[in-house]
Amino acid sequence: MDTQQRTGTDGTGRTLSRRELFPLAGKFAVGGVGLAAVTGFGLAGCGTDESQSTGTTGNGTSPSAWPWPYDKLSSSQVQPLAYESWYEKFCCYAVTNSILRPLQENIGAPYTNFPIESTKWGHGGAVGWGTLCGTLTGVGIVTGLIAGGDGEDILNDVMNWYTVSALPIYEPPEPKTAISSVSVSDSPLCHISVGKWMAKEGVPFASDPRKERCARLSADVAAKTVALLNDWVDGKYTAGGGSQVKKHPVGMPTQNNCVECHGDNIPSSP
Amino acid sequence: MDTQQRTGTDGTGRTLSRRELFPLAGKFAVGGVGLAAVTGFGLAGCGTDESQSTGTTGNGTSPSAWPWPYDKLSSSQVQPLAYESWYEKFCCYAVTNSILRPLQENIGAPYTNFPIESTKWGHGGAVGWGTLCGTLTGVGIVTGLIAGGDGEDILNDVMNWYTVSALPIYEPPEPKTAISSVSVSDSPLCHISVGKWMAKEGVPFASDPRKERCARLSADVAAKTVALLNDWVDGKYTAGGGSQVKKHPVGMPTQNNCVECHGDNIPSSP
Repeated sequence: MDTQQRTGTDGTGRTLSRRELFPLAGKFAVGGVGLAAVTGFGLAGCGTDESQSTGTTGNGTSPSAWPWPYDKLSSSQVQPLAYESWYEKFCCYAVTNSILRPLQENIGAPYTNFPIESTKWGHGGAVGWGTLCGTLTGVGIVTGLIAGGDGEDILNDVMNWYTVSALPIYEPPEPKTAISSVSVSDSPLCHISVGKWMAKEGVPFASDPRKERCARLSADVAAKTVALLNDWVDGKYTAGGGSQVKKHPVGMPTQNNCVECHGDNIPSSP
Repeated sequence: MDTQQRTGTDGTGRTLSRRELFPLAGKFAVGGVGLAAVTGFGLAGCGTDESQSTGTTGNGTSPSAWPWPYDKLSSSQVQPLAYESWYEKFCCYAVTNSILRPLQENIGAPYTNFPIESTKWGHGGAVGWGTLCGTLTGVGIVTGLIAGGDGEDILNDVMNWYTVSALPIYEPPEPKTAISSVSVSDSPLCHISVGKWMAKEGVPFASDPRKERCARLSADVAAKTVALLNDWVDGKYTAGGGSQVKKHPVGMPTQNNCVECHGDNIPSSP
């Protein structure tokens, strides 16, 4: 949904207890396992209140027609391209190249006017800072170009799916490295997602198995994204994740696995 | 620098103590105040090991010429446009529109082929998930288009600056709302950055002062970005932040204010 449609609690200013903030946390978030994996609802529920802002489409119109046309892609098209693209320019580029490159070839302009390599910066959670997983940055860029405002719903749903799914799923026909583990991230953050997998696999970040995991995960994220885009272009897509704002009592942009970072030390609402 | 140039520790697989991992943490990170504000070196030092990968530029070449041409912009051009653009489509769009819109007007194509509105998804740390501050997502998109591989250095340096600076700085000639606080985020994450400011100002997220803070901060980030792009196009830019990888013993993509989330419970290296 467009954020203009997002409505949230207005933040009363009173101090909320951890129990009020996260009524399920004590039950479901023990041991750093966030709500996402339990509720099956991803991390939706901690959003922006930007529906409160004076948003208009005012002078934000680009000279180029937008959203861009989309022809359906199959998982068998994007998975191997994303996997191989990771080994060229890493996670964000893997997702953008696996979706936008076939559209450059199948549709041409406006896709051919966009330098896909310009998205490489998303790797490692933004040039290695460990923030948003670069695959999800790639999803945001791609769905923003293809689906306009609806792209925010699709990104939100891919992020929900990412946080609750045991990944990686994709098995390349000719793997560069054998790996044995899958893990649920409970977070869209590179640092947390890859760190949990590394701990389960027992390998450091600078290892071939870790690279293989990220390459396969890139294929998974690309396949999930085109599956939702295909439903969307067929008129069959319904946003599933829901507004982050509507589900969080103070409307902070955040995740619901709060205790994983905060423990019991949840800051009170201003 | 391009990540192909980034080299890092290779992760020996042995268990590292918290002291080994973060030798300054006990001294400098007390009370959740990360290293960034103390060292003046941002959060650089926790990066990817992607220099280890078999990166090539192989089939990643776009049909469109890239990087895109750049004509210098002034802070007085981008600050008011970023500020006003936040109230249209929020933080990520505020930065991309304040830089790319003047370039559409001054240069035309290829900028006019890019729908700036497609970047709106970055708001609230990616559709409200509280991850990478949308202003910094905007910087990544813009510097990726304009500066190519050097854009990663510029993004890294803007992120360093963002984490150690008392923001917001910009004072609009006609503020929509009066605010009184500035805060140092010690993090590029929306959730942490805006949360610290909200706590200092004593306002909830769904408040006009919070929106004003984010609009002014967008102007600050846009101004910092064009300042570095102007130096870069003049051949005067030198990357300052340094590789995240070179400064972190296990090369995890992360920040250096580790105890702010982990406390003393720093996971050992696999």
